[in-house]
Amino acid sequence: MTNLYDQAYDLEKSIRKSEEFTALEQAFKGVMGDPETKQLFTEFRDTQMSMQEKQMQGEEIAEEEVAKAQEVVTKVQQNELISELIETEQRLSLILTEVSQIITKPLEDLYSEE
Amino acid sequence: MTNLYDQAYDLEKSIRKSEEFTALEQAFKGVMGDPETKQLFTEFRDTQMSMQEKQMQGEEIAEEEVAKAQEVVTKVQQNELISELIETEQRLSLILTEVSQIITKPLEDLYSEE
Repeated sequence: MTNLYDQAYDLEKSIRKSEEFTALEQAFKGVMGDPETKQLFTEFRDTQMSMQEKQMQGEEIAEEEVAKAQEVVTKVQQNELISELIETEQRLSLILTEVSQIITKPLEDLYSEE
Repeated sequence: MTNLYDQAYDLEKSIRKSEEFTALEQAFKGVMGDPETKQLFTEFRDTQMSMQEKQMQGEEIAEEEVAKAQEVVTKVQQNELISELIETEQRLSLILTEVSQIITKPLEDLYSEE
């Protein structure tokens, strides 16, 4: 039992030391270190979250809000620091997804035996 | 890089060998080995999934269907083999959730630095 959690913590350390995670850290620092970019990034994240919440609750999204969101996305796409952050996020996210698939394989195998 | 995936596979092996997983395997075999219980379990799962899908799509669930689902749940609760399966599932699920929290900690830490 303990062993299993020890292994999980070792894996966590490897993730922390991975090229992908350190690249993400750097990219995040880049965004946070530039006040204008930081503000744009916060705005981008808030907009995405607000739209997602509304979608999930089946609320209608006003045309105005969609237009505003598109404007923010355009600005974000033109911002090199944020583009770098999004790209490094996606690279790390891919690893975490793969790891998660490896770990949930026993359960998946069991239920597909049926 | 390779190291990280090796660690994930080692962790997977430990999960497979864990008391919780082997208990789940046994419980699953128990359910699948009894035709009547297997049928009830399949019915239970189908009912749950159908209701979840409808809820997610915002569809209304007919009273009749709710009543039928409740009937199935009552039967399931009285079935020892299925109760054992649900309990062992929950125990394994807890471990997988904890492992997942450990592994996503680096990301969480990074974004809470802000």
